[in-house]
Amino acid sequence: MRIDGREADRIRPLSITTSFTKYAEGSVLIEVGETKVICTASVEERVPPFMKGQGRGWVTAEYSMLPRATQVRNQREAVRGKLGGRTMEIQRLIGRALRSVVDLQALGERTLTLDCDVIQADGGTRTTSITGAFVAMAMAVNKIYEQHNLKAFPITDFLASVSAGVVNGQPCLDLNYEEDSKAKVDMNIVMTGSGQFVEIQGTGEESPFSRDELNQLLALAEQGITQMMERQKEVLGPIAERIEGRANAARK
Amino acid sequence: MRIDGREADRIRPLSITTSFTKYAEGSVLIEVGETKVICTASVEERVPPFMKGQGRGWVTAEYSMLPRATQVRNQREAVRGKLGGRTMEIQRLIGRALRSVVDLQALGERTLTLDCDVIQADGGTRTTSITGAFVAMAMAVNKIYEQHNLKAFPITDFLASVSAGVVNGQPCLDLNYEEDSKAKVDMNIVMTGSGQFVEIQGTGEESPFSRDELNQLLALAEQGITQMMERQKEVLGPIAERIEGRANAARK
Amino acid sequence: MRIDGREADRIRPLSITTSFTKYAEGSVLIEVGETKVICTASVEERVPPFMKGQGRGWVTAEYSMLPRATQVRNQREAVRGKLGGRTMEIQRLIGRALRSVVDLQALGERTLTLDCDVIQADGGTRTTSITGAFVAMAMAVNKIYEQHNLKAFPITDFLASVSAGVVNGQPCLDLNYEEDSKAKVDMNIVMTGSGQFVEIQGTGEESPFSRDELNQLLALAEQGITQMMERQKEVLGPIAERIEGRANAARK
Amino acid sequence: MRIDGREADRIRPLSITTSFTKYAEGSVLIEVGETKVICTASVEERVPPFMKGQGRGWVTAEYSMLPRATQVRNQREAVRGKLGGRTMEIQRLIGRALRSVVDLQALGERTLTLDCDVIQADGGTRTTSITGAFVAMAMAVNKIYEQHNLKAFPITDFLASVSAGVVNGQPCLDLNYEEDSKAKVDMNIVMTGSGQFVEIQGTGEESPFSRDELNQLLALAEQGITQMMERQKEVLGPIAERIEGRANAARK
Amino acid sequence: MRIDGREADRIRPLSITTSFTKYAEGSVLIEVGETKVICTASVEERVPPFMKGQGRGWVTAEYSMLPRATQVRNQREAVRGKLGGRTMEIQRLIGRALRSVVDLQALGERTLTLDCDVIQADGGTRTTSITGAFVAMAMAVNKIYEQHNLKAFPITDFLASVSAGVVNGQPCLDLNYEEDSKAKVDMNIVMTGSGQFVEIQGTGEESPFSRDELNQLLALAEQGITQMMERQKEVLGPIAERIEGRANAARK
Amino acid sequence: MRIDGREADRIRPLSITTSFTKYAEGSVLIEVGETKVICTASVEERVPPFMKGQGRGWVTAEYSMLPRATQVRNQREAVRGKLGGRTMEIQRLIGRALRSVVDLQALGERTLTLDCDVIQADGGTRTTSITGAFVAMAMAVNKIYEQHNLKAFPITDFLASVSAGVVNGQPCLDLNYEEDSKAKVDMNIVMTGSGQFVEIQGTGEESPFSRDELNQLLALAEQGITQMMERQKEVLGPIAERIEGRANAARK
Repeated sequence: MRIDGREADRIRPLSITTSFTKYAEGSVLIEVGETKVICTASVEERVPPFMKGQGRGWVTAEYSMLPRATQVRNQREAVRGKLGGRTMEIQRLIGRALRSVVDLQALGERTLTLDCDVIQADGGTRTTSITGAFVAMAMAVNKIYEQHNLKAFPITDFLASVSAGVVNGQPCLDLNYEEDSKAKVDMNIVMTGSGQFVEIQGTGEESPFSRDELNQLLALAEQGITQMMERQKEVLGPIAERIEGRANAARK
Repeated sequence: MRIDGREADRIRPLSITTSFTKYAEGSVLIEVGETKVICTASVEERVPPFMKGQGRGWVTAEYSMLPRATQVRNQREAVRGKLGGRTMEIQRLIGRALRSVVDLQALGERTLTLDCDVIQADGGTRTTSITGAFVAMAMAVNKIYEQHNLKAFPITDFLASVSAGVVNGQPCLDLNYEEDSKAKVDMNIVMTGSGQFVEIQGTGEESPFSRDELNQLLALAEQGITQMMERQKEVLGPIAERIEGRANAARK
Repeated sequence: MRIDGREADRIRPLSITTSFTKYAEGSVLIEVGETKVICTASVEERVPPFMKGQGRGWVTAEYSMLPRATQVRNQREAVRGKLGGRTMEIQRLIGRALRSVVDLQALGERTLTLDCDVIQADGGTRTTSITGAFVAMAMAVNKIYEQHNLKAFPITDFLASVSAGVVNGQPCLDLNYEEDSKAKVDMNIVMTGSGQFVEIQGTGEESPFSRDELNQLLALAEQGITQMMERQKEVLGPIAERIEGRANAARK
Repeated sequence: MRIDGREADRIRPLSITTSFTKYAEGSVLIEVGETKVICTASVEERVPPFMKGQGRGWVTAEYSMLPRATQVRNQREAVRGKLGGRTMEIQRLIGRALRSVVDLQALGERTLTLDCDVIQADGGTRTTSITGAFVAMAMAVNKIYEQHNLKAFPITDFLASVSAGVVNGQPCLDLNYEEDSKAKVDMNIVMTGSGQFVEIQGTGEESPFSRDELNQLLALAEQGITQMMERQKEVLGPIAERIEGRANAARK
Repeated sequence: MRIDGREADRIRPLSITTSFTKYAEGSVLIEVGETKVICTASVEERVPPFMKGQGRGWVTAEYSMLPRATQVRNQREAVRGKLGGRTMEIQRLIGRALRSVVDLQALGERTLTLDCDVIQADGGTRTTSITGAFVAMAMAVNKIYEQHNLKAFPITDFLASVSAGVVNGQPCLDLNYEEDSKAKVDMNIVMTGSGQFVEIQGTGEESPFSRDELNQLLALAEQGITQMMERQKEVLGPIAERIEGRANAARK
Repeated sequence: MRIDGREADRIRPLSITTSFTKYAEGSVLIEVGETKVICTASVEERVPPFMKGQGRGWVTAEYSMLPRATQVRNQREAVRGKLGGRTMEIQRLIGRALRSVVDLQALGERTLTLDCDVIQADGGTRTTSITGAFVAMAMAVNKIYEQHNLKAFPITDFLASVSAGVVNGQPCLDLNYEEDSKAKVDMNIVMTGSGQFVEIQGTGEESPFSRDELNQLLALAEQGITQMMERQKEVLGPIAERIEGRANAARK
């Protein structure tokens, strides 16, 4: 039995509020337990200099935490004058993961910027950001798709992410902060709707782990991600069908 | 008649949600029309080096906008590696204004940091931040007051802020973004519960203004601030009485 | 009676030395009491990227203090690697104030940069900078006007600035450093030759102020600014007449 | 058959030159094919402030590439004024991996800094850095162990790292730069001498991967790491026996 | 005959105005031809951390140019966020040169900071800074000497500096900007009152130079420095005698 | 007799390994005693903006030390976020010295960047960098010369550098670190193959020096540089003849 009463293979309550802010082309507030992240998708009709003239788009992400998203206040990175290593690592991961399900050719010479701003952090902020940013991105892409009459819907599959770890010798799904700080092994997994891996990051700084433990954690993650995608499909409604269409075509 | 149907002397709908996030000692979501700001108050049991050993506390503020709080996405200041002039100006104003109603001696050697993070910006973000941060600060100060059995309640009066400006030749209260960008004169006023001025900042870059116009804008501001303080008192409940107590004592 | 023997409504001795350095298109050394500022105006035949192709000019200002302009040496901002909040606030104010009396259309696609370098600081450095920079700017604009045969003289009115504050309960004009550090209310006012306000910045961090006090301070400022403009007109000579001409035309 | 004639399950020629520079407590030049990295271990008799007084040591790593380690010259990070995201990500990985086999208690209040400077980059610079830094660290730790008569040898197991990826549909071990830039899946694995995982980082940005592919890549990595550790043991000689001793004790 | 009518072995008109600003412990305006530099000496009763507890003092220098000290406006280093290489090189030179004539033991645990701010630049700003800073330093050191009753006067000899170069094939003393930009060889020399060299920096980027040319330039420099020291002695008056006393004692 | 047994007029053992790394157009490892520097020359087919369209090339240099090139580990400049003054001074010197023997017109609109990375520092790193960078540059220039069929070989003469100083009252050539830290006078000299000076930098911070001492140090340097050039010619082989050709033509 876990701290918050969950069983080992259960994710925390998941809520996705769409159109949380009004200016962004896509915007959600995602809540996984007490972790809350605002994800917005912004569209620009141009690509970074190194991609100009290739007819392809780009997807990038930025991640930040409000100073008091955590138990103890953190100094703002804008005040320190630079992004920390953890922030860079996370935003590179988010961008890479999202790009894996975008057909950059179909997107055309446009840049999507996904901003993931954590307003409350209780573990799993990077996986929650990916799951939420996917929804914001899908909404923004749908607007482009409709306004510009794109030939193909540029999102090729669903994408969600969850953490898993070994807590008190027990493989557990979706760790909260308290569990995370006690975990011996810590894993973040990103998967597509087709059940394939996009990212696997497993760390055993406190104690290395075996092939067996790895397999158990991956199995838990697969369960959690399936549940998350159901919720994504509900809130996306007809947009989900467009993604499904492309994914099915690819699977054949 | 104004763009959004308001009369010249009316503020926009005001909502203050307390305890919006769970870790901060004080936390509110304040909404003034479509402008939305998360204000948190964090307490540290120490003061900056230059104040050490004087037995007095300190109050400081930081202000930031999410990149897509606005119609067009702004680059993060953490990415640019420095705070912009506008940000610095605003956070200096917020800190100065809040300190004017705090008895730093009564607070003791503690630092209050007020973080004002704008999640949606539709004009008046700095005045909204002050009005919201006051409530978050009062909540945090009340916790200190009770936990440490302070002799006097360290907040000496109410404090709120509103903007006013001349739009199409007409003095108007609480401008939204569209009005603000057309205004010839732009004024931000901060007042105490006793009806005194803490800050007056009036700018006539587009066109200078007369003593008459100044007086009309100050009168509007006074009305708006009174309405805002009523709402502050409602959400603060018994804490408001403690502030009232100190303010009355001082007025005698 | 004040520390330096002045009456409450008197400014300190004012001296403006034109052509203080030889390369700048306009250059003055302004001395208000013991406060000394070098103001230079530099002309570039281009505007910042965001204004290109609109046929309008731009005016901007930078402000700095020599490290030992003050009683205790300050670290250079170039050494710290960034501008402080106070510096940014002041240079934004100077630029905004100067632009209010420049017809950017008449100026054409040119940038005027006003550098205000304080070599000795005894209170009122920002107001002194504005008063001095106006003269340097007028000299530079006059050169452009003559060299390029502009149709209209691009400066539309005079501009000067002074501080006022409440010291020992007494409203006083043009505070020196010692008075300033004791003042309960501190006000900086910028006015045009037509007697209108361009900027009003009043701060009562130590103690809030009433409408009455505000009115007294504004009245003092108006007197001080009138005296300063007389001196500006003397040193500008025939250039003053060109400004006067435009201002009169506008007043009709 | 691969570009350089290797079979899929072979690592490139591996060479480890110890005492490559003379001042560091541990220093190696490691060459994996054409990838060359100087790894030095520096010892300081103090720990970072956040660890003071706990009686435990710290291990940290820094990673950098000479500007012309690559086909096209890269700008120095010192010139840009900040570390890039890739650098931060890699040096965090190296530090985390090394700490997993250090008994920080046995090390005592000392800091080991591992500098990994890539002088030629032909793929696998981060895995090569880990394998080389382990040797440099062991040499430095051995000096401390002997000089300070530590009770236990502070390194608890061997550690090495290798990459694997799917190139032209074929799982391959230890990719060089040309293979790496064509790989659909890219994986970096760090393992201990006991055959457990310390880090698994798999990325399928170009194309997601299946559980099957994952298993094949992990099997290849295990082979490569075993070969690397043999070489580490040869160059470490008697120091290897001390590590072996601690690892065996732990395995029982 | 040179551009400004001088003969090859003549320095430009030299003027040193002492007590140019009022707060610094030593302060001069030095003018060498059209080059004008404000030099101030600031005293702090402490030394940098690396020198603490050794009973010795420290002398350091900072150098800067006002943005419009030159024909074309330069961007402020504070705005660029870092010191340029030229600035660093010059301020290291000034500090090194001044320290060569200070008895740091006799100075005691104090830091002298020499600020050299160029308000007009017409060649030779670094050599003019050294000559001027020496006077400001002597004034500040004299105050310490008197206030703290030091046993020995801490300045051991005079110090001045001048440039020389080969212009149109002709060795010339004290180049102005126009000459400097045409010079094939450019040399900056710092000498003591005893006629010894403290710094020789000769650069032949445009064209290398012979031993003969070197000797001619050194001979010119010696003449120029002798003239400059006469002026230093005049403005220092009785302080000059104290320096002379120490220098004579050392020469014996 | 010196610490390492050398006579006063002898340089340390000199070794130049060409093609030390494989990607750069020119690359050497230069060793002067225990000082080891990797010098690479990179070619870009463009010049900096300020030189565009003039048909001339550019040569620039960057200098860095690995953190543990020295007895005590130095913090990386990339971590501190800026280049130190010493680094800037040295890389400006290297660039200036190299440009003095390059015919920028003959080079055409290309940039040569010389990276000098010190992997072990035992005195004389800047002079060693110049001597080594000259060889790397010659190799890169030779490639351009052959690939683009340039009319003239763009290197006009040989160039090498050495240090000299007064140690224990004795003028000595090519100081190692231990000697350097005891030297009263420290001199770095750069000369051409024609025996002319390109740079002379002499510093007597600890104690000023006489014309006599200067002459002795210059004579020593001339000897050392001659020996170094012999070694440069050996490793450059036929390239040396091309340089010789241009130098002889110029001497006539």
